[in-house]
Parts: sequence; structure tokens; C-alpha cells
Amino acid sequence: MAEKFKKILIANRGEIALRIIRTCREMGIKTVAIYSTADRESLHVRFADEAVCIGPPASSESYLSIPKIMAAVEITNADAVHPGYGFLSENADFAEVCQEYGIKFIGPRPEQIRRMGDKITAKDTMIKAKVPVVPGNGELLKSAADGLEQAAAMGYPVMIKATAGGGGKGMRIINSKEEFQRAWDSARAEAKAAFGNDGMYLEKYITKPRHIEIQIIGDQYGKVIHLSERDCSVQRRHQKLVEECPSPFMTDELREKMGQAAIEAGKAINYEGVGTVEFLVDADRNFYFMEMNTRIQVEHPVTEEVIDHDLIKEQIKIAYGEPLSGANYYPKSHAIECRINAEDPWNSFRPSPGKISSFHSSKGQGVRVDTHVYAGYTIPPFYDSMIAKLIVRAPTRQEAITKMERALDEFIIEGVKTTVPFHQWLMKQQDFRDGNFDTGWLGQQELPEGK
Amino acid sequence: MAEKFKKILIANRGEIALRIIRTCREMGIKTVAIYSTADRESLHVRFADEAVCIGPPASSESYLSIPKIMAAVEITNADAVHPGYGFLSENADFAEVCQEYGIKFIGPRPEQIRRMGDKITAKDTMIKAKVPVVPGNGELLKSAADGLEQAAAMGYPVMIKATAGGGGKGMRIINSKEEFQRAWDSARAEAKAAFGNDGMYLEKYITKPRHIEIQIIGDQYGKVIHLSERDCSVQRRHQKLVEECPSPFMTDELREKMGQAAIEAGKAINYEGVGTVEFLVDADRNFYFMEMNTRIQVEHPVTEEVIDHDLIKEQIKIAYGEPLSGANYYPKSHAIECRINAEDPWNSFRPSPGKISSFHSSKGQGVRVDTHVYAGYTIPPFYDSMIAKLIVRAPTRQEAITKMERALDEFIIEGVKTTVPFHQWLMKQQDFRDGNFDTGWLGQQELPEGK
Repeated sequence: MAEKFKKILIANRGEIALRIIRTCREMGIKTVAIYSTADRESLHVRFADEAVCIGPPASSESYLSIPKIMAAVEITNADAVHPGYGFLSENADFAEVCQEYGIKFIGPRPEQIRRMGDKITAKDTMIKAKVPVVPGNGELLKSAADGLEQAAAMGYPVMIKATAGGGGKGMRIINSKEEFQRAWDSARAEAKAAFGNDGMYLEKYITKPRHIEIQIIGDQYGKVIHLSERDCSVQRRHQKLVEECPSPFMTDELREKMGQAAIEAGKAINYEGVGTVEFLVDADRNFYFMEMNTRIQVEHPVTEEVIDHDLIKEQIKIAYGEPLSGANYYPKSHAIECRINAEDPWNSFRPSPGKISSFHSSKGQGVRVDTHVYAGYTIPPFYDSMIAKLIVRAPTRQEAITKMERALDEFIIEGVKTTVPFHQWLMKQQDFRDGNFDTGWLGQQELPEGK
Repeated sequence: MAEKFKKILIANRGEIALRIIRTCREMGIKTVAIYSTADRESLHVRFADEAVCIGPPASSESYLSIPKIMAAVEITNADAVHPGYGFLSENADFAEVCQEYGIKFIGPRPEQIRRMGDKITAKDTMIKAKVPVVPGNGELLKSAADGLEQAAAMGYPVMIKATAGGGGKGMRIINSKEEFQRAWDSARAEAKAAFGNDGMYLEKYITKPRHIEIQIIGDQYGKVIHLSERDCSVQRRHQKLVEECPSPFMTDELREKMGQAAIEAGKAINYEGVGTVEFLVDADRNFYFMEMNTRIQVEHPVTEEVIDHDLIKEQIKIAYGEPLSGANYYPKSHAIECRINAEDPWNSFRPSPGKISSFHSSKGQGVRVDTHVYAGYTIPPFYDSMIAKLIVRAPTRQEAITKMERALDEFIIEGVKTTVPFHQWLMKQQDFRDGNFDTGWLGQQELPEGK
């Protein structure tokens, strides 16, 4: 087993940086926060043992700058880096640079990140591991004409996706050949802007799919276990808004099958660390591998609440070289997470940065709030608009929903618009209460806009 | 089964009133807060559906005034009353008045409160139910001379206790006959002031005892189950400061025996509702019934965290007439609660009321804070000094302690002195970390006073 870390630098910001600092404290590990000049007042800076300003607000010159982050590592003498989610968390080059510097990157090895980061290679790996995948040969499209030809062979609807994609960027559903050219142009432009790479591939589009993902952990010795699923089907333009565990659509039999498939996916690449295997599940409960995220996810707390373990701690223990003990974990209760974004839900979720004048977070039995903000904090316009995650747990789904309603009612955030009213609306919808929704459901609803 | 309540009046204040309001909301029940003029700004007033001012700050003219509370019930048309803890929660007359008005008192029936409220009758009931009790005939002492005679027969050390006692008031340890008269005088004076009743009785004093209590629930049909123990041995002058579940002193065998004894205690009085059977446990793991609290307790959250159920909800369901389903509950993890009081721990825990200028409560995985205060709130000097309960849960006791240290470190309360530094000190003590303490332990420690 490797020596325990003395000091971890957190190469991230906001709630996830604070989340990681908390676990490090509990493990007796010193922490270094990095921050851009826009984030001086964030709680992650205040709660870390040390903090280093690494540049101006633009991510490219701060949270995405490998040289600046490595300089901060050197200055502070950190012996490990936790990348959080987003930013450099799935950047194999960054993991490699850390390796070269003799700094432990808390996550999988560079080659594992690379294999899952490229969607085509990932799919190929899954086919070899006999994990069901979405129909489509996965090859890089040479041109729009090439795409049209493949789509015709596969049958519409199809989906065009960026090979470097993630978070719903560079993705379009295409229902007929007439829609092809426009989707091709806009998806490529979006992918180019988001990832600097406009490679595209085509897939059969699964109608009315659920997004259900399996959390896995692999150790350095080839053991991989699963920690049940998360249902993330409530999405707006491929962006997750609400996640829960267990999925209301899940059966014991399906969980066994999907869990085993996710374990096979992990084993196929000797996966090391916590990771998430995302699947689409159709109405007949057929499931298809979508992608694997080789990092901690935004929605990891719903799993933590139902299995009563700290996943960041598990990541650090795996990085130490501790072997996994025990078997798969199954949910003991029900947890739901609502992402609270500084956005106006009744005005197309338009971002609403600015100063929070009043802030009172929900509390009480079964309620958890992960946030880096507070009364007086100014939300900068440069980053993700998520300002808090509100998580509840209760013995049953129905009780979790009523607890979430109570917790939303008592969450006070003044000075900026937030998605709290959206979640209040959502919790009242009969389809949501019945567990009757797929990834397209929200897009078909009439929101009480302009309220 | 009785009809569900439409509106519950909460005959209490502060964190427990807010705690009850939260559960009522989750159950779809309207709430009425009552408040004295000193409590206008408390969150329990803000979060209730309705609020009624019932009088001036003095408890005797507000929270202890049965006529005023019944008037509030009548005005608001509430159909049930939740008494919380303290105040009228163990007042059989109040429960009786509610009954006469056709209002459901959420708690046991008046005769059950009465039987357990008088310590001598309670002990007698336990002897009949074959629950082990502390040696001592339990009779009201006629005079100091009578007490001296009994003590000589029993052997020192003995303990003198008020028959109407609770919360450590009117209680003295007596190590020799020379100490008797002084203890007798001061205990009687204290009991008179606190309860208006200076009846005294004598018991054998158990040396180096642990305070371990068993949470029970009884339904209206004679079924009683237990929900494991809480260890409340960290006490200052008989006041609990920290509680945890499971007890580090517990064994599976002892839990079975104590759990069964507590169930027998409940069955002996056909107990209805949630209740706590308090025991002293000596170094050889002999246990002795101390008293039964016929209400929800301050420290109930540690049980909630390890069994993942809402005890206030259980109280309300029992009051509806729902039958208990299922068996005894056993801890699935470890929980610790620290009582955060507005007191100066380095100056004999002197109360420190006043305005809270800054308030940031701990958050994150496994952390719960129950509180009615916030930045800008003024703590009135008239009531209990507890302003928050900080509760953590983790898979093991060691992890719960490190989580509590982290949570204490991030709890920011400015403007008043609090017991946060005391708890930070406590968590570092080797005896506490080893689980090596009894109810006298804290009194023997040298606190870093005057800091």
C-alpha cells in the first residue's frame, strides 16, 4: 500500500472543492485550494488549509491551465491532486503530467481516461466486453454525406454526437433526412466551441429512454464492485436537473443485469477509482451503454445517502492502494438530489449571476445541502451556474418527495433567481410522482414560464 | 384508526418546535406555532402556517400556561397538540385538559405520564415488571433523620433525589453521614424552586455509572418495540452534553437484555408513543432502571440517524392509531450529537445570551444541524441556552468522531460564546476517543478554563 497523502491540492472550485476538503479534513490530510481572481470569496478558499490564486477568471487561464496548476502543486508541496468533476477531471494529459511529476492523480490512470474519453474507442471496448451498446458502428463520420448514408441504413430517428462530447454538448436528435444537414452543422459548431474538436459519429436513437447510470469502484488489484444505480432522466436539453436512487423504473432483476454489465465494463479496462457507467434504458427495459465517466459525478451524494458511505473517501483510499473489501452495495432507503442553479427557470433557465443578499439553507432530518455560497456571496458569471445541491433521504420514494417539497419550501435564496421554483413545480407533477418520465419528458411539459 | 390530523399546535419553542413543524409539513399537516414576546424572531414562528403570541417572556405566563395554550388551540381550531420536550411535555394535567377538550395530545395517556412522572411509583412499577432497579426502598423520606437511618442500612455512597425531579435538579451524592445534612438542605431547596415540591427519597449510589437509555415505541394495541440505545454519559452536573448511538460500552448481549427490559417497562404501563427508559450501567455491565421519559428527547436525532426513521413522524402515526409493524431496530452506523449551547465553556458554562452576528452551520455528507437561530437572531435570556444540535453519522465511531471534529471546525457562530470549543476539546481527549468514560468523568477533568 502506498504512503498516505500529506497534502492534497484540489484542482477545482465551488461546492465540489469544498466537498473534497471536508473529507480530507476527516482523514487528517492537509488541503490546498486553487482559485481564480473571480473566486476569492468562495468557501472552498476559506476552508482549505492553504489557497493559491492561479489566474484570471477565464477557465482556460486558471482551472484549465495545467502549467499553473502544477506550479501551485510545486509551491505548496502537495503530494496528490484531486480533480473533482468537469475542468481537468477527465483530461488524460493532466493525469499523465501528474504521474511524471510523481504526484498522485486521484482517479484512474491516463490510459483508462483516454480509452473511455473517446466515445468510439469506449464503445468498441464495451462491444468486446459484451456490454450492450446502442446500435451504430461508432466510426468518425467523414462528411455529412457519409452520415446521411449511415442514417439511412440504420433507420431514423438517429442521434449525432461529438466524439469528444459530454454534458449534452454537440448532440442532436435527427428524425428524418431533411433534418440532417442543419443538425450536422450546429452540432459540429457546438462541439468545436466546447471541446476544440468537431469529430462526429452516429447512433440509433433510443426512443423514450431513461438515463440510468451505475456507480462502480475498482481497486488497484482488479476487483470491481457496483453501488447500485442513479436515475437521471429528468433532463433539460441533456442537462441533468434531478437525480435519484433507486430508480423508480428499476427491478431487482434489471439491477443485477445492469450492475453486472457495469462491472464488466470496469473490468475490461482494469478500472481504478470511482466511475460511472451511463446507460439508456428503453421502455422494455433493454439497456445500452452510453458512456463512462471516469471521475466523481455531480450526483454522487444520492448514492452516498442510500449506502451511507463517503465516495470521496473511497476515491482517496483506492488511490492509497487499499484493496476493496466487501460486496456490491444496495440501496437501504431512497435519496433525491435537486440541482439548485442560479438561473431563471421561467425564462428559459437564463443564468442569473449576481450577489446573494439572503441565504438560508434547508436543514433537519434527512436533508443535506452541499454548497459553496452564503449570504453576501457574489456568483461570478464565468462558470457553471450550479450554486447548491439539495439532497434528501427517506425510507420510501414517496416520503423522499414530500421531504424534498418541505426542504425546497424552506430554502431561502434572495438576490438572484434560482431553480428552486422549478423543482417545487416538478415535485407536484403527477408523472414525476408516479416515476413516469424519460429523458424527453421535461421537454414536452409546459412550464409556467414568465411567472 | 383515527382520522388524520388537519392542524397540530406545537406547545413549545426553538429547535424542537421547528423540528416538529418540518415533519408536519412532510405529512401534509398544517401547523400552529405559539410564542412568547421574547420569541417573535425565532424560526419556529416563521416556518409555521400560523403563529399565536401567548404572553410575556416568563415561561409561567406563556409556554407553561395551560389556559393560554388551550385558548390558542381554540382560536386556531387545531385538532392535536405536540408538546415537544420540557415545558408541559410531561405534565399529566395538560394531557388531561387536552383530552377533555377533544384535542389529541401527541404522547402517552395522562395516567401513563403520571405513573412514570412520580419517581417512586415508577420504581415500584418496574420492580413489579421485574426490571432491575437501583437498590433503595423508594419511600418518601420523612426527615433528615429518617434519611440518615436508611443510608446507614444501605451503606454509603447514597444518592438523595427529588421525587418530582428531572434534568439533574434536586439530586446529591452523599459519601458519608457527615455530608448528609448539607446535601439534604440544598437538594430540598433546589427541588422546591424547580418543581414546587421538595419530596425526597434515597437510593444506593452506583459508582462510575454509564447513563445508557433505550428508545422505545408502543402503539395503542399493546405492541412495544425498542430502537436500541443512546449513551449519554458525557454530563456536566447531570446535564447531558453529548449523546451517541451505539454506546461504545454496549455488547450485543447487553443490548438484548436492556432492550427487553425497556420493552417490559413499556408493557407494564401499556405505553403508547415514543418514550425513553433510562438506565445506569455499572462497570460490570449490571444495569438499573433510573427513570422513564414519556416524551420525545433532545437527543432523539442520534437514533434517527442510525435507524433512518423520523421519530416525530412515528409519534404522530401512533397518535393516529396506526399499529406498529416490524421488529426492533438496530444501529446500521454510528451517530454522535453535540449540544451547542450559548454558554462560555471556559467560564463555568456561564450563559451567554445576546445577538448572533455571524452564523454558518456545518454541512456536507453525514452532517445534520437542528437549530432555530440564524445570523441576526438574538438569543433571549429566559430559556434553555441550547441554540443548536450538531449531529453526525458515519460507518464507525472513529469516523463519526473525525467527522464531528470537521463539523465543529466549520461551525461559525459569532457574537455570543458557545460550547463549540468545549466539544472540540472533548473530541481530542483520549478517554473520549477510547469510549472510556462514565457520568462522573467530565467532572474530574481539568478544562482549559479562562481561555
